[in-house]
Amino acid sequence: MSKTLSVNAGSSSLKWQLYEMPEEKVIAKGMFERIGLKDSIVTVKFDGKKEEQIFDVPNHVEAVERLLEDFKRLHILSDLTEITGVGHRVVAGGELFKTSTLITPEVLEEIKALSNLAPLHNPANAQGIEAFMKLLPDATAVAVFDTAFHTTMPEKAFRYPLPNKYYDEFQVRKYGAHGTSHMYVSQEAAKLLGKPLEATKIITCHIGNGASITAVAGGKSIDTSMGFTPLGGIMMGTRSGELDPSVFPYLMANDPTLKTAQDVVDMMNQKSGLTGISEISSDMRDIRDGRANGNKKAILAFEMYCDRIKKYIGQYLAVMNGADAIVFTAGIGENAEYMRAGVLEGLSWFGIELDQEKNNTPGAIEISTQNSRVKVFVIPTDEELVIARDVEALKK
Amino acid sequence: MSKTLSVNAGSSSLKWQLYEMPEEKVIAKGMFERIGLKDSIVTVKFDGKKEEQIFDVPNHVEAVERLLEDFKRLHILSDLTEITGVGHRVVAGGELFKTSTLITPEVLEEIKALSNLAPLHNPANAQGIEAFMKLLPDATAVAVFDTAFHTTMPEKAFRYPLPNKYYDEFQVRKYGAHGTSHMYVSQEAAKLLGKPLEATKIITCHIGNGASITAVAGGKSIDTSMGFTPLGGIMMGTRSGELDPSVFPYLMANDPTLKTAQDVVDMMNQKSGLTGISEISSDMRDIRDGRANGNKKAILAFEMYCDRIKKYIGQYLAVMNGADAIVFTAGIGENAEYMRAGVLEGLSWFGIELDQEKNNTPGAIEISTQNSRVKVFVIPTDEELVIARDVEALKK
Repeated sequence: MSKTLSVNAGSSSLKWQLYEMPEEKVIAKGMFERIGLKDSIVTVKFDGKKEEQIFDVPNHVEAVERLLEDFKRLHILSDLTEITGVGHRVVAGGELFKTSTLITPEVLEEIKALSNLAPLHNPANAQGIEAFMKLLPDATAVAVFDTAFHTTMPEKAFRYPLPNKYYDEFQVRKYGAHGTSHMYVSQEAAKLLGKPLEATKIITCHIGNGASITAVAGGKSIDTSMGFTPLGGIMMGTRSGELDPSVFPYLMANDPTLKTAQDVVDMMNQKSGLTGISEISSDMRDIRDGRANGNKKAILAFEMYCDRIKKYIGQYLAVMNGADAIVFTAGIGENAEYMRAGVLEGLSWFGIELDQEKNNTPGAIEISTQNSRVKVFVIPTDEELVIARDVEALKK
Repeated sequence: MSKTLSVNAGSSSLKWQLYEMPEEKVIAKGMFERIGLKDSIVTVKFDGKKEEQIFDVPNHVEAVERLLEDFKRLHILSDLTEITGVGHRVVAGGELFKTSTLITPEVLEEIKALSNLAPLHNPANAQGIEAFMKLLPDATAVAVFDTAFHTTMPEKAFRYPLPNKYYDEFQVRKYGAHGTSHMYVSQEAAKLLGKPLEATKIITCHIGNGASITAVAGGKSIDTSMGFTPLGGIMMGTRSGELDPSVFPYLMANDPTLKTAQDVVDMMNQKSGLTGISEISSDMRDIRDGRANGNKKAILAFEMYCDRIKKYIGQYLAVMNGADAIVFTAGIGENAEYMRAGVLEGLSWFGIELDQEKNNTPGAIEISTQNSRVKVFVIPTDEELVIARDVEALKK
């Protein structure tokens, strides 16, 4: 019996999911939070049970040691050699990694070298990789890149209209994000449409705390909202998304609390978006409650949020000359029916019709009317499964 | 007989057009270039003749003195009292000026105070106003604001998803540009459509060296591409338009020639856009020639340029739930049929069909096919006429 681990390592966290492959059955899953801090939180879910413990986990290697011990202690595995593959989510693959890749020492160095494009994420991803390579040296290690799915974008879409040297020498371009999610839900949507993937045009809306929208033509990303970093594209929970760059020197000249360009970007990353406008929360459920109570700032935040998503849908309909389906996924996309209604309202000219009743039914997948010219789907994303599949495909 | 002057004063230039009103007949027009520099260029066109002289014009007051003398010397006017009104283009009206406004000393002070929003333009506009108020004190003086037409935008469109204080205290929002042009061509388009303005939905593409796109619903601007400053929105001749703000600190940290945020914005304003990508020129005609010669950078610049305009058309179709017409205007919009073809190619799903033959016919106004669901018009803009009309409407 062959087991594969999907791993998503952050700077102070490590999320994992253990699969029986090729059956794609989840055997156990869990996470470490507050790694390197006092009172780390360690959660394991398996067999309908949940175990949560609080103790200090000083680093990623000790987290992985503890995880492997737990697999035996909890009788999830009888022997660690059952784990034949480990797949790691890596945020930035730059232009180098166009597909999921077997991790060699050289690949690991390249992932570290790409940290300039994802300074918060790639070093943490690399720490997770190193911890597993040390403790499970015989398992096939695979890097699954968030950006790989977007490497099919044409140059006109991924380039910024800046002097060429900023692309040629400084790698400034649009890389995109949430690639495994956009890929997974577009493939699922093609199945629902009953069409070969190559013949489909799908707009995928991955709307979580981070969010991006992708134009997927023939199964390939041809444009996406996220940019050079996860600050690009649409308004998000705490992020502003794209805007007129002149705001930068203006704010630095006028707001004494913003001393450097990094201060401005930090404000745009952490204090903007839903949080900045609503002054309530970055959580869409709090915005929903604020709206229900007539809070004007919450109403404005919600209207702005839906407006930006609607505009990207319009853009990508133009880029692809129409679409077969629009897909909503991720935390907000899957659960906030009021957001979906807000985005898709007033698109009758396009023949896009939401079925309000289906949209309000939890778990409903097709939420457009029978006559809608474009199908609208809610598809739960499953990035961990994509990672496990890619490991399986590359296993020695 | 009543004459009105339309004036567009820049920091080293002054463009003017003299109208017979209310007949809207152009009697003469001309401009001063290189004001304050050596060898200023002074041009006057009237009665099918053109006079060009080169001499030093040290400031705007002397330019206006000279202009008024020329009116008599060239027998354009027999008496300066015939000029009963002067209309001034003003770039930034902020949130204060929602319509064209009679200029009082208070209004002039407010225009100067708004210089923080247009540091290159408003001070020059104010200089032009002061020169004419000094030399033609009895003429009705009217300020016509580039931003006024966009003051009807709803808050969800004009706000950026930044902390509220940057709007409340620092006036950071989308103001838009080219308002008189968007207003004029949308009104002309409504006439061509044979529909009351209130019942129309029109996307106006003002595409010159500076460029912006506006969604005009019922005669009112409800969204526009240009932002806080003329750097927002689409790719332009030398400007980048909107992008992921993270590029800012990254470039400052990595390119030693960019020391301050202002350096980055200057690069984005002056060295980006068509110039940055093509490495040939900011002029669309040079890009056209480069493409024709197979120059790859010119081809990429052109593709990126059309891609951005197409995406805004898609956005505004979504924002307005369709459109009756798309209008192209201004230097590139009126003259670059290859750009219009590049933008409108591949929109058959929307029922948008360009008539290639009409598109290639200079002077053709309706360039869509008979069956096109959305009409496509080329309408020469006339900002000077709008200014003269607004003066006429406000004359004492």
